Amino acid sequence: MISPGTKSKSQDLTPLIELVQDEMQMVEDWLGTNLIDDNPFVGELLKQIFQAGGKRLRPLIVLLSGRATGKDNEIGRLHIILAVLTELIHTASLVHDDVIDSSDLRRGKETINKKWNERVAVLMGDLLFAQASICLARLMNPPVVGIYGQVLGDLCAGEIKQMRHQFNIDADWDTYIQKSIGKTASLFSAGSHSAAILNGQDNDTVLALKSYGLNLGICFQIVDDMLDITGDFDSKNKAGGVLKPVGGDLRNGVLTAPVLYALAQGGKDSERLRKLIEERLVVEDAGNQEGLSIISRSCAIEKTAELAQKYADDACRDISILPDSPYKDGLCALTEFIMSRAKSN
Amino acid sequence: MISPGTKSKSQDLTPLIELVQDEMQMVEDWLGTNLIDDNPFVGELLKQIFQAGGKRLRPLIVLLSGRATGKDNEIGRLHIILAVLTELIHTASLVHDDVIDSSDLRRGKETINKKWNERVAVLMGDLLFAQASICLARLMNPPVVGIYGQVLGDLCAGEIKQMRHQFNIDADWDTYIQKSIGKTASLFSAGSHSAAILNGQDNDTVLALKSYGLNLGICFQIVDDMLDITGDFDSKNKAGGVLKPVGGDLRNGVLTAPVLYALAQGGKDSERLRKLIEERLVVEDAGNQEGLSIISRSCAIEKTAELAQKYADDACRDISILPDSPYKDGLCALTEFIMSRAKSN
Repeated sequence: MISPGTKSKSQDLTPLIELVQDEMQMVEDWLGTNLIDDNPFVGELLKQIFQAGGKRLRPLIVLLSGRATGKDNEIGRLHIILAVLTELIHTASLVHDDVIDSSDLRRGKETINKKWNERVAVLMGDLLFAQASICLARLMNPPVVGIYGQVLGDLCAGEIKQMRHQFNIDADWDTYIQKSIGKTASLFSAGSHSAAILNGQDNDTVLALKSYGLNLGICFQIVDDMLDITGDFDSKNKAGGVLKPVGGDLRNGVLTAPVLYALAQGGKDSERLRKLIEERLVVEDAGNQEGLSIISRSCAIEKTAELAQKYADDACRDISILPDSPYKDGLCALTEFIMSRAKSN
Repeated sequence: MISPGTKSKSQDLTPLIELVQDEMQMVEDWLGTNLIDDNPFVGELLKQIFQAGGKRLRPLIVLLSGRATGKDNEIGRLHIILAVLTELIHTASLVHDDVIDSSDLRRGKETINKKWNERVAVLMGDLLFAQASICLARLMNPPVVGIYGQVLGDLCAGEIKQMRHQFNIDADWDTYIQKSIGKTASLFSAGSHSAAILNGQDNDTVLALKSYGLNLGICFQIVDDMLDITGDFDSKNKAGGVLKPVGGDLRNGVLTAPVLYALAQGGKDSERLRKLIEERLVVEDAGNQEGLSIISRSCAIEKTAELAQKYADDACRDISILPDSPYKDGLCALTEFIMSRAKSN
């Protein structure tokens, strides 16, 4: 059950970050480093990109997964590199997303395409992918190289799938979940189970971590899609909060979980929403607002939160086979963090 | 000595391709294959991209290098994959270049950004890089993964360097050669010496092939830069020929070998050229034409061809340590092919 307005304590990642604090600092130091040459302009851009912040959720998943599956809960240099390259791939895809969407702001700061231009942004995205490839090579682990190669493909395929289904009112749940895997969960899962592979873990443990990452990632994407609908209540009432324009997915004709639930509900509201999307009225402010209102007064938001919770529960269940440790608990607490984002809006 | 208008026989790649015909066909079949998912739209785009043609020079370098350094001149599946991924990286960078330059045409056909849009082009470039990563993983060879990671970085760094030096009249030869390595020679060299690595060759042979690829690539880039100046004579006189607008580099303030030579020559013409660039008059048609005329009537073109020939000779000398074979001869003949492009204009 959602209780809007109550900010949950678990929305704070700090206790989880503290579990792997030294490693997170090393990741941070690596991230802004130019691994390719000594071009000062590139170095400056890298610093700007990474100083803009971000939750560093993906490095956290890698480091916690590494410790939770490591001998005596220890991890080494390889896990730091894995955490770095996972964040590099995520950041590269954000830089290209901002070009694709012609976005001016990201996390409240000017995007590379806005501050410089599209040329620089396309190249810097490529350069971040290249830095990730260099890190990947340093792992000297062919299976992990294969996993990340597929992730890169999934990221593009997920975006292309989303683009092709815009305003397609017949988009189904399978398409939605597959797209969420491609866009988000594939990378989460690569990070979690590659961390176990680097520890030389047995197949059962590796598969458990793979499934954990997948479920956590789908949960994350569902919550993100929910915030695209509910975020307005938040940003109206207090500073900070959601920094991207609310209703953006709907405006672009991207049919996410709340929309799918609202469409499936039946009745006059569903019909009207269908018409708003089919006739692309959601592109305009008035149609967009009307669509958001229909979704908000339906049970769609509650059902979306329940769906996200199901994936969160599955993620925790996946790792029940791991030996008890603060890191295993941390991985489970990550699901609470993600769900608390939904509840605080 | 350049003899404009004489089309050299060695401008035909066919005899070299025939040396590795079966393998080149396998490369062609792989190139249009979607390794990521069964999305029909992506499959269609891949076919379009690769059916648009291209000389397949990079796969040819890989396959000839593989045979020239292979036991009994044999190569296997790994060399096919290496050839494929080398062409994938090249193609990905072209797709992104066309976005960056807002180009409408490539090899006489509509670019992805023109035919679809920039979103699709950015994503398809990323997807091609992802396909290359998947191929790279299949090689199961960490040193080769490292070499290609660095190439990806060099490609971006080379483009960024070029962008930062636009209209910079003080750009020097070192900057020019470094940029040529990043943009072109780094990938040529990765292909040639990785082919030797996959054959388990000794260090001397690997280094010889590395240097060969580097020299061949620099030679190729110099000739390409020369065609940007001299290409107009060709496209005016007969169908086909150079398909990109002549003088494009100069228009963008990119200082290539012919420009550097013309600037260094001294005298009134050099001074005028400097002014045309510094005051960005080369951006306009009149200034561009005047600049091209100054370069063409100087000794810059001849000197540029001599410089390219020096790198071609070095490339052939590099591989003199290889045992005699038609493939070693083919590698040397590649330098003649590249130089013949310069001479035919």
